[in-house]
Amino acid sequence: MTPQPNPDAGAAVKAADRAHVFHSWSAQELIDPLAVAGAEGSYFWDYDGTRYLDFTSGLVFTNIGYQHPKVVAAIQEQAGTLTTFAPAFAIEARSEAARLIAERTPGDLDKIFFTNGGADAIEHAVRMARLHTGRPKVLSAYRSYHGGTQQAINVTGDPRRWPSDSGTAGVVHFWTPFLYRSRFYAETEEQECARALEHLETTIAFEGPGTIAAIVLETIPGTAGIMVPPPGYLAGVRELCDKYGIVFVLDEVMAGFGRTGEWFAADLFGVVPDLMTFAKGVNSGYVPLGGVAVSGRIAETFGKRPYPGGLTYSGHPLACAAAVATINVMEEEGIVANAKRLGAAVVEPGLRELAARHPSVGEVRGVGMFWALDLVKDRETREPLVPYNAAGEANAPMAAFGAAARQHGLWPFINMNRSHVVPPCNVSEAELKEGLAALDAALSVADTYTE
Amino acid sequence: MTPQPNPDAGAAVKAADRAHVFHSWSAQELIDPLAVAGAEGSYFWDYDGTRYLDFTSGLVFTNIGYQHPKVVAAIQEQAGTLTTFAPAFAIEARSEAARLIAERTPGDLDKIFFTNGGADAIEHAVRMARLHTGRPKVLSAYRSYHGGTQQAINVTGDPRRWPSDSGTAGVVHFWTPFLYRSRFYAETEEQECARALEHLETTIAFEGPGTIAAIVLETIPGTAGIMVPPPGYLAGVRELCDKYGIVFVLDEVMAGFGRTGEWFAADLFGVVPDLMTFAKGVNSGYVPLGGVAVSGRIAETFGKRPYPGGLTYSGHPLACAAAVATINVMEEEGIVANAKRLGAAVVEPGLRELAARHPSVGEVRGVGMFWALDLVKDRETREPLVPYNAAGEANAPMAAFGAAARQHGLWPFINMNRSHVVPPCNVSEAELKEGLAALDAALSVADTYTE
Ligand SMILES: Cc1ncc(COP(=O)(O)O)c(C=O)c1O
Ligand SMILES: Cc1ncc(COP(=O)(O)O)c(C=O)c1O
Repeated sequence: MTPQPNPDAGAAVKAADRAHVFHSWSAQELIDPLAVAGAEGSYFWDYDGTRYLDFTSGLVFTNIGYQHPKVVAAIQEQAGTLTTFAPAFAIEARSEAARLIAERTPGDLDKIFFTNGGADAIEHAVRMARLHTGRPKVLSAYRSYHGGTQQAINVTGDPRRWPSDSGTAGVVHFWTPFLYRSRFYAETEEQECARALEHLETTIAFEGPGTIAAIVLETIPGTAGIMVPPPGYLAGVRELCDKYGIVFVLDEVMAGFGRTGEWFAADLFGVVPDLMTFAKGVNSGYVPLGGVAVSGRIAETFGKRPYPGGLTYSGHPLACAAAVATINVMEEEGIVANAKRLGAAVVEPGLRELAARHPSVGEVRGVGMFWALDLVKDRETREPLVPYNAAGEANAPMAAFGAAARQHGLWPFINMNRSHVVPPCNVSEAELKEGLAALDAALSVADTYTE
Repeated sequence: MTPQPNPDAGAAVKAADRAHVFHSWSAQELIDPLAVAGAEGSYFWDYDGTRYLDFTSGLVFTNIGYQHPKVVAAIQEQAGTLTTFAPAFAIEARSEAARLIAERTPGDLDKIFFTNGGADAIEHAVRMARLHTGRPKVLSAYRSYHGGTQQAINVTGDPRRWPSDSGTAGVVHFWTPFLYRSRFYAETEEQECARALEHLETTIAFEGPGTIAAIVLETIPGTAGIMVPPPGYLAGVRELCDKYGIVFVLDEVMAGFGRTGEWFAADLFGVVPDLMTFAKGVNSGYVPLGGVAVSGRIAETFGKRPYPGGLTYSGHPLACAAAVATINVMEEEGIVANAKRLGAAVVEPGLRELAARHPSVGEVRGVGMFWALDLVKDRETREPLVPYNAAGEANAPMAAFGAAARQHGLWPFINMNRSHVVPPCNVSEAELKEGLAALDAALSVADTYTE
């Protein structure tokens, strides 16, 4: 875990990357990817030997940190016995992963359809809902991200949708509750919740209940800003779905598998959806895996009639073995409980203390190991520190904040005017304190951009 | 490699599968998945100790067979050092995989965008083409399969598209050359080729050349029946694309990485597309991986302007390490050359000899380790042995053919009225002869359904 500098090797990795790797979400000539040499637990390091505390968990997927020895061993063992096999067979790792997931999902979400990641999980959930109901439309939130394939990006609400939206695919976006930036002129959580439900029911009425196959929501919107819904909201959506025969899809790709201090964020609210998507935390991203947990009623629809969807690597043995080991390790080491305990005892008070001292912090919100700092120019007006979807010069304040954090040894998660605090769920108290100290320094830089 | 029977373990795996695994392309209550205990090279075995010679390569992805020791070792080593990392960084395995792939792709397809599988590779290729051209439509073949996500299934031509087609997404299907079942009333390959190109150019003219972003084709259509295009066809499509400013996308998800006896099927025809999708053979499916090889001109479009697409596991280190090892092993062990040599010396003459004796064989076609037997009721009329998209009773002849092959120790690939002969590319001559003998027996059963 003591990184050895090896700048020549780093330069070679970087050169091949620049020559041959086409990077996602990027202008290929304007990026300068850091060459990473290794990682362990909550840290990673580059080829110069600089080590970073990772408050991003990758893209919020390494819920057990990097290189957990038991999960690494399980992957090595499965690789040595049966690394791959086609989906139409019963395979031990596949069966066991499905069983362990089904045991933890709420309600009767007991059948697991495996995919490679989050986007294809959403694709298949939407397809199941459309075929189950025979209805065309999907309702989803403006403040959301559901993935990069066509159906998933159509359902997404963030600006990544704009260049790829095929519009005609029958997706309607609506507003979800978020008191700090209310679309409903609300002043209390109760008001926000009631009005958000009223807005949703009105949207359903005007779109035509009989045309709506599904409502797709992140249980707690992640990339869009970690907005924990007010008490009663998700239960209210559940009721509307029941009232109008709409399939309720909860996307737990980011919020699931311990992130919120529960196995699933739905557990925080006692709500059971009809379909639940997962990925990331299911095996900490050690091997690509995602999926849809399917309720009994929807599984029945595809009991005698074929489900017309699939993919070559559905239930990939190596990915499933990593899930089995990850879930067992999370259970054995109390990782979900750790996220809950340290979230409440260290992260929340720590962030609130920073907020008290730094005028750039507009709001602190979250739960478990899933927190956002909403940075503002002005606490009164709540004007974001940078405009929505800012790039280049307009984004300078957040860029300066990020650079300062990295100078202090912290790799921060930054999206628009927010920094998310999303370390591994098995992070230690000492690591959290180290990270909070770096955030303190970075926020001092952000403060210089306030008015 | 001597399978030990363990029926109790098999029963447990099967029970958990039936309780919790939701299977692709299936009516959940009507399937009875075989529990597989292990696999090595060209064989796999069940928990009763029954061993099968695998003429399917899974779903045509284990091009180096099961459990190749060098690739297994490379996966184990990468798992021990850096199993996962986020996409926005330069990582050794990612850089090296991109370099090795770019070295082998034709022309200037030198930038590699990594995905998790084939469908998302197609999704991103179509997105790149649309953004590069600013045009909405995509032309693709009726006889094709490109994956299960929304855009990929819209582009697909086989009946798996029907239940999920969102129609409005701007995809237009056209007919590609296939002399045995010509849509062009052709009697020679030259005629079929010329008319297919004329049909395509007319389609372009009537759809409006300025509205067409891409033509997407499998270099050799795989699942749809392994129809090797006649000489000149793909070069003709390339010319039409150049003439009308259309992006030419070749899908090599199934045909790539040695399957045809070349690194890419495009090499058989000396054609260079603008975008080429791959998956499966790139690492023999040992870890989920796919991607798009991007030409210089299209990469330039996203030089200063961001490419608006991505996924959490783009360039997954473990998947990339498996690709590096697979490509090196294929090179060291001459696996591509083996597919070419044994394809010509054993598979082709073997299948032609079977065809001469079995009236159920209408046509034998293919190249390398990529062959189809087109089974017919009547050689004169060429009526397929079972109707298009048959199920249940109507599919009995193919079901009987499959059961007979399995009784003789061969696991066959069956799609509609065809059996594809797609063993690993490093299959041995003895294994091929064993498989041909089992096919002989199975074809005798198919013969009983001819008229
Ligand atoms: C809530 C949510 N859904 C879906 C996705 C898409 O997952 P993937 O990137 O694995 O396709 C993400 C990715 O960040 C996500 O956060
Ligand atoms: C030519 C082709 N393209 C795309 C795909 C889809 O790949 P995946 O199943 O990995 O999504 C397939 C799968 O068989 C294929 O054969």
